[in-house]
Amino acid sequence: MHKGRLEAFSDGVIAIIITVMVLELHMPTSAGLPALRAVAPKLLLYLLSFVFVAIYWNNHHHMFQAARRVNGAALWANMHLLFWLSLIPFVTDWMGERFGPIPVAAYGVVMISAAIAFYILSRVLLAVNGPDSPLARALGRDHKAIASLVIYAVAVALALARPWLAVALYVVVALIWLVPDRRIERVLEAVRD
Amino acid sequence: MHKGRLEAFSDGVIAIIITVMVLELHMPTSAGLPALRAVAPKLLLYLLSFVFVAIYWNNHHHMFQAARRVNGAALWANMHLLFWLSLIPFVTDWMGERFGPIPVAAYGVVMISAAIAFYILSRVLLAVNGPDSPLARALGRDHKAIASLVIYAVAVALALARPWLAVALYVVVALIWLVPDRRIERVLEAVRD
Amino acid sequence: MHKGRLEAFSDGVIAIIITVMVLELHMPTSAGLPALRAVAPKLLLYLLSFVFVAIYWNNHHHMFQAARRVNGAALWANMHLLFWLSLIPFVTDWMGERFGPIPVAAYGVVMISAAIAFYILSRVLLAVNGPDSPLARALGRDHKAIASLVIYAVAVALALARPWLAVALYVVVALIWLVPDRRIERVLEAVRD
Amino acid sequence: MHKGRLEAFSDGVIAIIITVMVLELHMPTSAGLPALRAVAPKLLLYLLSFVFVAIYWNNHHHMFQAARRVNGAALWANMHLLFWLSLIPFVTDWMGERFGPIPVAAYGVVMISAAIAFYILSRVLLAVNGPDSPLARALGRDHKAIASLVIYAVAVALALARPWLAVALYVVVALIWLVPDRRIERVLEAVRD
Repeated sequence: MHKGRLEAFSDGVIAIIITVMVLELHMPTSAGLPALRAVAPKLLLYLLSFVFVAIYWNNHHHMFQAARRVNGAALWANMHLLFWLSLIPFVTDWMGERFGPIPVAAYGVVMISAAIAFYILSRVLLAVNGPDSPLARALGRDHKAIASLVIYAVAVALALARPWLAVALYVVVALIWLVPDRRIERVLEAVRD
Repeated sequence: MHKGRLEAFSDGVIAIIITVMVLELHMPTSAGLPALRAVAPKLLLYLLSFVFVAIYWNNHHHMFQAARRVNGAALWANMHLLFWLSLIPFVTDWMGERFGPIPVAAYGVVMISAAIAFYILSRVLLAVNGPDSPLARALGRDHKAIASLVIYAVAVALALARPWLAVALYVVVALIWLVPDRRIERVLEAVRD
Repeated sequence: MHKGRLEAFSDGVIAIIITVMVLELHMPTSAGLPALRAVAPKLLLYLLSFVFVAIYWNNHHHMFQAARRVNGAALWANMHLLFWLSLIPFVTDWMGERFGPIPVAAYGVVMISAAIAFYILSRVLLAVNGPDSPLARALGRDHKAIASLVIYAVAVALALARPWLAVALYVVVALIWLVPDRRIERVLEAVRD
Repeated sequence: MHKGRLEAFSDGVIAIIITVMVLELHMPTSAGLPALRAVAPKLLLYLLSFVFVAIYWNNHHHMFQAARRVNGAALWANMHLLFWLSLIPFVTDWMGERFGPIPVAAYGVVMISAAIAFYILSRVLLAVNGPDSPLARALGRDHKAIASLVIYAVAVALALARPWLAVALYVVVALIWLVPDRRIERVLEAVRD
């Protein structure tokens, strides 16, 4: 099965998710600076979600570039990931409009689910491509993924008492991933040479 | 005629349909758990429609991978399918906001129409590709499609008296299709070898 | 300059235009049949616009398949076409919500502009590809395009007195184009042989 | 790393941005000409933003066509550009609904940020592709980019006193770029020969 169309479909869905969030940004209610200032926290939460979706696209891109084969299970594991990603605009909007313990915790739950979905997808791809595929070497042991899950779990618990602190932890996870994953790139280059 | 651009356009439309439904999800009206609980049935209906659209994408993907040729009639049969799929966000939203006999039956009517459109598309592709093409072997006799149509028809009738039971039947159809269609994959692999 | 990315971008924009119109369909205000009946005219206008956009995609697809080369002027002529197509959801929505002389005439003006933009695009592509390219043979003399423009102009004038009659003329134009343009396909096949 | 998927993803995001703005156009509140006239300024601002996004797509297309290689830094520089472009519908909407000094200045700030993001992306690509790549020759010294930045800065300052004059300056920048960048095309052709 060719992976090209799966990549193209995922690109489409992720491109829509990342752009649709802007539609949810209600425009300031007047033309003045105070109105813009009132929208500022929502703009920052939008930026945070933009970065998260961008990170997923980057990792998705790297992982599929290293994968040689996909199968029906991979299609569904990918759909499962896209489902959780598609809820990011919903929880971002909720958190932005009604900041508080439950919406911030809900954001974290969606993030945990997406992270687990990505992990499942990587295992399915690994099973199709075999243990000595470039993908296997590229994925390696994923300290970052485990760290993210732990921080997300702490953030969800913390959200119920200190929602802004939970958001700070989400920012920490984003920063962990913003450091480009040179490991995969290095393996890909080694394979090419 | 190359099938590449038809696939790319369909990917775009289906990606938008699957993501646009999230836009229709009105965010909970407050920050509390009861507000989230009030949204929960809509989230589940969104999940159901997500799964249906994902099934269509999967089957579309498999069918076009087995097809060697497309023609003008196939372009229009595909547009016809996309039209019915594009109504899924509309009926999902209606059913979610105003749960009741008519909206639930309308959902089923759109589903039946999409299923018929998919069947027409498969026959058009079969006519172009010939009776001994890989596509012909891949499609075979489609018990699942006939079963789905029958269940949909029962559900539409049932919706007028017991809407939730009709939704349960829609879930049954989704489950029938979630079992991956190994048949087509097997034929594709046999052809490749 | 490769035409691939221009095609992909156009596919994306047209896919969004064709799907976005569903978002504009406000869901029936209650769960009953009368509410659905009240939405029915809007659904039919949506279907009409869906068919128009589908026709443009089909013709765009055929034309670019026959084109061997694109240049900077073709990029802009294509953007010009996409601009007018992007207004179709806007006028469809206006016509659907506030049916009357001005909205129906505005719909026709957007249709005329899109038709002229398509004509300009075809001439620009013709100039790049040369008078004895497959594209030149595929385009030939375009009776349909001229007939459409004349009917649109009559419809715009008529809209001010009899809006429903103007809509009937729009349907006539759609039917003219729904007949697949076998000419281009025939030339493409001849070239391939 | 292949540039194909980065181009496809960017195409998707830019296609959505350019089309989403139409969704923000609230339909005229009645069926009469005065209602259409009331929407006219917003339509013109939409046209302006459409042209800006089209210019970005064109330049993005030309630049990536000349680039042979991309790396992780280029992925993120591209995401950074897409982030600023994704805010264009937001500021266009704000400027259209609440015309005044702050919204018009905010539009300019987003435009300056997008221009800087494009510059950063071009430098990152230059670093990957080397000083004697076709890209290096294609980019050359960019008088247009510097002129745009200066005019944007003047416009932002001017917006606080004379918002319509600032919009006029935005139009000037758009016109500067509408002149097709023949330089890059010429170099590409020279390379091909």
